[in-house]
Amino acid sequence: MSTPLKSAPAPRLPRWRGSGTALMLGLLLSLLPGLQACTALTPSTEVSSLQGPLVIGRQGSFFVGGRTIASGTLSTLPAYAAEGRVAIEQMYVRYQVPVDARRVPITMIHGCCLTGKTWETTPDGRMGWDEFFVRRGHPVYVVDQVSRGRSAANTTAVTAVKAGQAAAASTPPVFMAGQEAAWAIFRFGTEHPKVHPGMRFPLTAIEEFWKQMVPDWIGTLPTPNPTVERLSELSQRLDGTVLMSHSQSGIYPFQAAALSRKGIAAIISIEPGACPEAKGDLKPYLGLPIMVLWGDYVDTSPRWAPRLKACREFAAAVRQAGGRADLVVLPEIGISGNSHMLMQDDNSLALAQYLWDWLDRAVPPKAR
Amino acid sequence: MSTPLKSAPAPRLPRWRGSGTALMLGLLLSLLPGLQACTALTPSTEVSSLQGPLVIGRQGSFFVGGRTIASGTLSTLPAYAAEGRVAIEQMYVRYQVPVDARRVPITMIHGCCLTGKTWETTPDGRMGWDEFFVRRGHPVYVVDQVSRGRSAANTTAVTAVKAGQAAAASTPPVFMAGQEAAWAIFRFGTEHPKVHPGMRFPLTAIEEFWKQMVPDWIGTLPTPNPTVERLSELSQRLDGTVLMSHSQSGIYPFQAAALSRKGIAAIISIEPGACPEAKGDLKPYLGLPIMVLWGDYVDTSPRWAPRLKACREFAAAVRQAGGRADLVVLPEIGISGNSHMLMQDDNSLALAQYLWDWLDRAVPPKAR
Repeated sequence: MSTPLKSAPAPRLPRWRGSGTALMLGLLLSLLPGLQACTALTPSTEVSSLQGPLVIGRQGSFFVGGRTIASGTLSTLPAYAAEGRVAIEQMYVRYQVPVDARRVPITMIHGCCLTGKTWETTPDGRMGWDEFFVRRGHPVYVVDQVSRGRSAANTTAVTAVKAGQAAAASTPPVFMAGQEAAWAIFRFGTEHPKVHPGMRFPLTAIEEFWKQMVPDWIGTLPTPNPTVERLSELSQRLDGTVLMSHSQSGIYPFQAAALSRKGIAAIISIEPGACPEAKGDLKPYLGLPIMVLWGDYVDTSPRWAPRLKACREFAAAVRQAGGRADLVVLPEIGISGNSHMLMQDDNSLALAQYLWDWLDRAVPPKAR
Repeated sequence: MSTPLKSAPAPRLPRWRGSGTALMLGLLLSLLPGLQACTALTPSTEVSSLQGPLVIGRQGSFFVGGRTIASGTLSTLPAYAAEGRVAIEQMYVRYQVPVDARRVPITMIHGCCLTGKTWETTPDGRMGWDEFFVRRGHPVYVVDQVSRGRSAANTTAVTAVKAGQAAAASTPPVFMAGQEAAWAIFRFGTEHPKVHPGMRFPLTAIEEFWKQMVPDWIGTLPTPNPTVERLSELSQRLDGTVLMSHSQSGIYPFQAAALSRKGIAAIISIEPGACPEAKGDLKPYLGLPIMVLWGDYVDTSPRWAPRLKACREFAAAVRQAGGRADLVVLPEIGISGNSHMLMQDDNSLALAQYLWDWLDRAVPPKAR
């Protein structure tokens, strides 16, 4: 459960567009014992070390949006009434804001069959991206998608079937992703239990990863997915945030930007399940810093290869239209071995630093 | 989302068995601007202020326990296989450990139809008990009960019905607590929408509270509830923790103590749905500091009045057998107006301080 930096591999990424000065400053300061906790209090050192105490300005949790419905099939148990109102489609958000935050808030959105846990401590016990970016000066907001985790699913249609008020066929299409199939989807190997050579996902802790998976109610939700509107509401409430999505949620930030650009400072999409159509309306994406990041072995996957191809076309189209869309496939810049779970692979903190450097240029910290 | 102390009412609780010295020290130190973040770094001031930066030694999340099952009804969707293995009955835990922690860890377990969110920011935006106890020197572990929130529910029986492989009657008895019925259960009033005079729950933010509620799968779980064994495992892993439960989970710490006393340092049960039988085997509870805390209006509630009565009998029986079980009903010590949600009422931080004082004596901080 400890998160020593030394357990992470030394960053071996090119210093792409980033000076890294703040990082070096943080590392230098971390050498002075007893000072770490106080470094974030002085404006000149707002980027703190990955080691030593974490100084939080404020933290907490709240919900965004949601609506109230009335139902006659809340329960079949005598202790709880069948009839009544419940709140659904709200989105749970947990946040931490570092002291003296000058960097843009980052909102992290998990993918299929997972929750906000995705971004927390890795299965093998290393620091998650949630804490990394706080330690690097960013307020961080981690959400549970609508209907998942701490954001209530709507089970009234399940109870309607149990109560005999609806046909079995109307049972909602909730699903659990099986470990064998998920193995290929997360690209640990081409098929279970084969492992891609050089695999960076910490497979020794795979059982801990499987525990992160939860039933996915996405098929029960209206279109567009209400999480998109919640992200737009949150962006406006924060008055500026990077939307960082993953996999199933990969396209949500783009859909939110199409709803309204208000509050969206940049988009980082990690291995998106889809990018917007290259031949579609690109206006919502112009003038917005966009990073689409991919791991390794994509070409071996019939599921992911076409998605990468479509994202390449989208990014090229945005650039051609005068926008700024960076698409990076890690092996193409010399980083091999990454699975679909970039935020949990054994070089996860180096990749986070890579994204930090990109953000440092894309959305510079505010002057005081 | 801010958590100013001044928005909380001034503590007006008797200083019961506690000196309050550490609190006063914290308040004094909070008057020195710029020093707050560093105060927790020196052993002599390990209790930090409720205001100013929060200094965390380490934080993260993990799962406890769980088992793997094979199922042929994981999904009815073509994109996800029907057959495969999934992990169930694991328990999600999020934790924060203050710098230089000398006080006993506290594990917080939510009640019916809720998640660990219970203990976080209150519906009206004040500091939750999770942060309060960290600021007061305790490592804090917040769980999602097995099958709730970020701890995966098992939906294979739902999908079996949808797939036509099981009868509609076999649909699991998941339920949602309706707001009208929950109103009386949480004792905001005798019935919806009546309000008890002097009500301390922040009803102006009631919609935010309703959003905390999630479907409850407890009826689908084996007996005893697997959360009990997970709490026992966690207690042993932490090598000493207070189990702080609420409502539905009220009895879990007692059940865990009956499994094994290893790692259980004390029990704080907030308005438990049940206490152990007064005439049952009391040995598991002797030599263990126990606090059972109740709010106001209990006698007006046909649901809660008998439970309080049974808990009084249990506490008396434990004391008669030579054990230590404190049962406190707040109106009986001059505190009126508290609902079932003590950790969210407008005097929640004063109540937390009351429990801190009790713990300070029941499980004294370790000498260095």
